[in-house]
Amino acid sequence: MKRRYSRQVHVGDVAIGGDAPVSIQSMLNAKTVDVEGCLRQIDELKALGCDLIRLAVPDEDSAVAFGQIVRRSGLPLIADVHYSYKLAHLAIDNGAKKLRMNPGNMTDFSNIKPLAQRMADLGIPVRVGVNGGSLAEKFSGMNEVDALTESALECANAFEANGLKDIVIAIKHSDPMINLEANRKLASMCDYPLHIGVTEAGTLRTGLVKSAIGIGALLMEGIGDTVRVSLSTDIKEEVLAARRILSTLGLREEGVNVVACPTCARTQIDVEALASKIEMICADVRKPLKISVLGCPLNGIGEGKGSDIGIAGGKDKSVLLFDGKVYATVSNDVLLDEFLKLLKRKIDE
Amino acid sequence: MKRRYSRQVHVGDVAIGGDAPVSIQSMLNAKTVDVEGCLRQIDELKALGCDLIRLAVPDEDSAVAFGQIVRRSGLPLIADVHYSYKLAHLAIDNGAKKLRMNPGNMTDFSNIKPLAQRMADLGIPVRVGVNGGSLAEKFSGMNEVDALTESALECANAFEANGLKDIVIAIKHSDPMINLEANRKLASMCDYPLHIGVTEAGTLRTGLVKSAIGIGALLMEGIGDTVRVSLSTDIKEEVLAARRILSTLGLREEGVNVVACPTCARTQIDVEALASKIEMICADVRKPLKISVLGCPLNGIGEGKGSDIGIAGGKDKSVLLFDGKVYATVSNDVLLDEFLKLLKRKIDE
Repeated sequence: MKRRYSRQVHVGDVAIGGDAPVSIQSMLNAKTVDVEGCLRQIDELKALGCDLIRLAVPDEDSAVAFGQIVRRSGLPLIADVHYSYKLAHLAIDNGAKKLRMNPGNMTDFSNIKPLAQRMADLGIPVRVGVNGGSLAEKFSGMNEVDALTESALECANAFEANGLKDIVIAIKHSDPMINLEANRKLASMCDYPLHIGVTEAGTLRTGLVKSAIGIGALLMEGIGDTVRVSLSTDIKEEVLAARRILSTLGLREEGVNVVACPTCARTQIDVEALASKIEMICADVRKPLKISVLGCPLNGIGEGKGSDIGIAGGKDKSVLLFDGKVYATVSNDVLLDEFLKLLKRKIDE
Repeated sequence: MKRRYSRQVHVGDVAIGGDAPVSIQSMLNAKTVDVEGCLRQIDELKALGCDLIRLAVPDEDSAVAFGQIVRRSGLPLIADVHYSYKLAHLAIDNGAKKLRMNPGNMTDFSNIKPLAQRMADLGIPVRVGVNGGSLAEKFSGMNEVDALTESALECANAFEANGLKDIVIAIKHSDPMINLEANRKLASMCDYPLHIGVTEAGTLRTGLVKSAIGIGALLMEGIGDTVRVSLSTDIKEEVLAARRILSTLGLREEGVNVVACPTCARTQIDVEALASKIEMICADVRKPLKISVLGCPLNGIGEGKGSDIGIAGGKDKSVLLFDGKVYATVSNDVLLDEFLKLLKRKIDE
């Protein structure tokens, strides 16, 4: 997978673009004025591997709270000020490491200069974030792919013409196919690093499918420097999903990959319960491990060959594999306990 | 999306390959000898849009039960006999419309002729199903992509050389990237219709991501004539996931597409609860509808423009959109009821 060339920008100590690894971001859904609630969410997301976090800054109270959160946050924070130059300056006063602005509701760029110059002086990048659902009125006649790219580039050009080179662009659409086409077009027209994601992807199940297809297809073409999975559910799921997408594509060798079989009439243990339990136990393991949980010896031992730890379930006893080789046959009563011993050994290795 | 050319085969009244729509299949996890349990699962899967169903036939009792299920099933059934010629013949005696055989555990093809000729006479296709976890020993030195394609083509050629032209091939691997590469290679080497899927994709969340990436990438390249999503969970999820993948790619315009926003500090209603409720209510609606559930007026009205029905949530009252236009502003207490009235109107249209 050859990655598209992009200029590199820095959000605090996190690089985006160039040869930086694809970073994971999410957005808090606690109200920004709820400082403790936000800090709790930040800690949770960080533990799961989130690199960057965005907060909405819709008013002055939120900007002040944002400042309090910045001082205690373990990650660089991005302030989403949508269209307001005033809030943009306030967010910078309060320690924002990056701003997100939405050209869809910025009326014009005539007052952009002082902001662009201040951001350039401080090394604070902007994310120009265009969204299919909030395109500026003047693009309404155009086809959506052109409208999204033109709106994004017009705003990015306005920042760059006024002295800011540290620009990330995000184009998002809720239809993964339009999203794909617009990002391909954008990627070919500039060297800005791209933040990718499918917007309003939906609830957990639908959102995972749309995001995996939409984000996955772009990354496979080498497009995308930072990702956000947008799900209408617990935001921890967004980070876990992003990790799964990157790990499926071999772009982030981190965390446990549980391979489990769909059950069939041959299945002799409760694969779903066991695999889910193991996934939960391993959610915050960052070491890259492959674990296979198969319901029958037929595929279980073959599949286990490529795994760090494998389970091939039998009726009363199951086979445990370690480093791809048969390790022991144990009673199903103690299977999980014996597995956990092997897991600990692998993590400590 | 231009589809790869493939010869067409028929499984009962369901066509696979050629210009046939990409069909959805799943595999029962009730024991085949549990006739009533299998029939219940078949009915459930059919209601959700499953076109073809596979059952394991690991022994003679299962073959007899398979026959009882065939007589009462509303869908054509595929018997998975893995390697046994004897069970293959028994399954045909009992009404199998397609057989799945796994070359990984067929010792040789010297006895294939009577089976191939009988299947050709009866118009029963075979699915040659190769699996990364159960490759034949003789391919063990080879790289996996070559091993998977060679094993599949060797077996398909044996059937074809003995008179059976109605052949579907499936190559499955638990690593979506190896799966992708092997299927690309296979697609370029033959005109057999391809059954695609990522094997042992895992539990719901991980499995959805791996399957959407692996299956989605192939379909986007025009490869794949029938799909199975393999998940270690309720098999209904497999059919729903397949539908979501096909619908995301515009390959199956069927069912309700719920666009919902990730919540942020701007959100004024419980988007997740509302969107999930709507998805559940609509799970068996087959009419293609786009429904948007957004948490704020800012994006809600814009996104709703492209929807059949839209909700743009506000603090106490929310905006309902119909055919993309603002329809009414209603109190949140009656929002779901008013939405359901619009849904009924849309379905009846």
